[in-house]
Amino acid sequence: MTADLIQDQFKSLQDYICQYLEKVDGSAKFEEDLWQREAGGGGRTRIIRKGNVIEKGGVNFSAVEGPVTDLMKKQLQMEGDTFFASGVSIVLHPNSPKVPIIHMNVRYFELNTGEYWFGGGIDLTPHYIVPANARKFHLHLKSICDAFSHDAYADYKKWADDYFYIPHREETRGIGGIFFDHLKASEGIAKEQILDFCLALGKAFPSIYEEQVNLGKHLLFSEQEKQWQLLRRGRYVEFNLVNDRGTKFGLVSGGRTESILMSLPASANWEYDFKPSANSPEAFTLAHLKKGINWLSEELQ
Amino acid sequence: MTADLIQDQFKSLQDYICQYLEKVDGSAKFEEDLWQREAGGGGRTRIIRKGNVIEKGGVNFSAVEGPVTDLMKKQLQMEGDTFFASGVSIVLHPNSPKVPIIHMNVRYFELNTGEYWFGGGIDLTPHYIVPANARKFHLHLKSICDAFSHDAYADYKKWADDYFYIPHREETRGIGGIFFDHLKASEGIAKEQILDFCLALGKAFPSIYEEQVNLGKHLLFSEQEKQWQLLRRGRYVEFNLVNDRGTKFGLVSGGRTESILMSLPASANWEYDFKPSANSPEAFTLAHLKKGINWLSEELQ
Repeated sequence: MTADLIQDQFKSLQDYICQYLEKVDGSAKFEEDLWQREAGGGGRTRIIRKGNVIEKGGVNFSAVEGPVTDLMKKQLQMEGDTFFASGVSIVLHPNSPKVPIIHMNVRYFELNTGEYWFGGGIDLTPHYIVPANARKFHLHLKSICDAFSHDAYADYKKWADDYFYIPHREETRGIGGIFFDHLKASEGIAKEQILDFCLALGKAFPSIYEEQVNLGKHLLFSEQEKQWQLLRRGRYVEFNLVNDRGTKFGLVSGGRTESILMSLPASANWEYDFKPSANSPEAFTLAHLKKGINWLSEELQ
Repeated sequence: MTADLIQDQFKSLQDYICQYLEKVDGSAKFEEDLWQREAGGGGRTRIIRKGNVIEKGGVNFSAVEGPVTDLMKKQLQMEGDTFFASGVSIVLHPNSPKVPIIHMNVRYFELNTGEYWFGGGIDLTPHYIVPANARKFHLHLKSICDAFSHDAYADYKKWADDYFYIPHREETRGIGGIFFDHLKASEGIAKEQILDFCLALGKAFPSIYEEQVNLGKHLLFSEQEKQWQLLRRGRYVEFNLVNDRGTKFGLVSGGRTESILMSLPASANWEYDFKPSANSPEAFTLAHLKKGINWLSEELQ
């Protein structure tokens, strides 16, 4: 299985997801920017904005290659002279505070030494946590993981809890999901199976989000709920700029800034020391931005 | 000169600046939060919001002490078992896009080895660059620097250009100002003189800002200019969360998050790949967010 084949599959995945999301939105269409990277390769950035459902989002494909820089050696702790990397990366910010923010990423990395790995993940950031909806989301992820390997959901769910965490706030970014990195063939698992797992995740992504959209998009919301959404977006910005290793690596390694920072919302607010009132839905959400919650449990309802 | 004395001077400086800024604003009053740090020391966070002039800002004093952690050793590259650090740190975000954002900081650091240093700086971030106003700002800084040492303005102006820079945007944060760090007594310069320089900078700060406020606050602005302000605030957020070493150190070393992140604006926007139209005031501003501009020159007018 060559890098070219993987790249083509990721490209088709981007096409599939964009078409599906345009139907989910019902109004906005993706705009496309093709870009090339000086040191080798390039990408296809697709942005959707001012839609019925999605206020701002991106579905990016890239396939870059070139010499391994000192910075990459330091960050990746791997040997090799040249690398190839391809992936699809998605963030969607909805208009409504009753619809969650979502992120998905699948990626493949290869060195000229022959070493390679896959990574990826999907996580959901509701502005208002609704346990029944969170359960639906995690059930889908579990089902995709179970088809791949017995321990995958438990392992990757924990990995997501640890990765999508904002230490300076002592909060998770949202209700998590799954995250995995450095997956390579091992006893009992072939390279093709890992690719298929990534593709299954990507294929399932738009319908998983469609479900979340349909659960929230018809709900009315108040100005106060809109303000809360803007504060939660502020936290999303903090995570992406302070804590997200992918964003940081992209920015310092000379990636295309506008493609990387498509993950930021159209607008975000910060209010000094804001504390939601006791027993409010906002306080309920804050109390559930914690690691280790079993979202599959029906007892949370 | 003891650490206690320096701390008292910084505290008085905070009082002086807050009183002055309340007059400049003409409406809002500072709210105060006292906080203590588990490992030793604490601070006095003062926040101003929803004023006539200032939409959101903070004037923070802190004096913290305790064991030197491994993280600090790594970041500061200094030996010592215990440290003391005190400072005043300010960011003000105005309502009007015609009034600049401003930042000021003075700080003192001491180790139980006897080693110590001062640092600080002041920089201005106009949403719209007006060279005549930038010149006034830099003339004040030059005059304070000249009273301290012959090369200070040239050295610290360059330092600010390099420090207040956003590499992933290839932009400076604003029109710079001065920045200095690790200042200690040397031949011809006593510790008291460095403290006096820091205090002179702090004392001058509110009147320097008052001048900038008065140059802009009566100007009308359009909705389009307000939108540009929100995009420029987005860049301010990027600098503070991605590039500012002070913010990063504060967050990872367990500082008080709400005090550190008072530097973020009430609201900020991101728009994918926004480019101002040719020959617009926005394009003029972007073209001048560069290192190495001599703002003292009258030829920029």
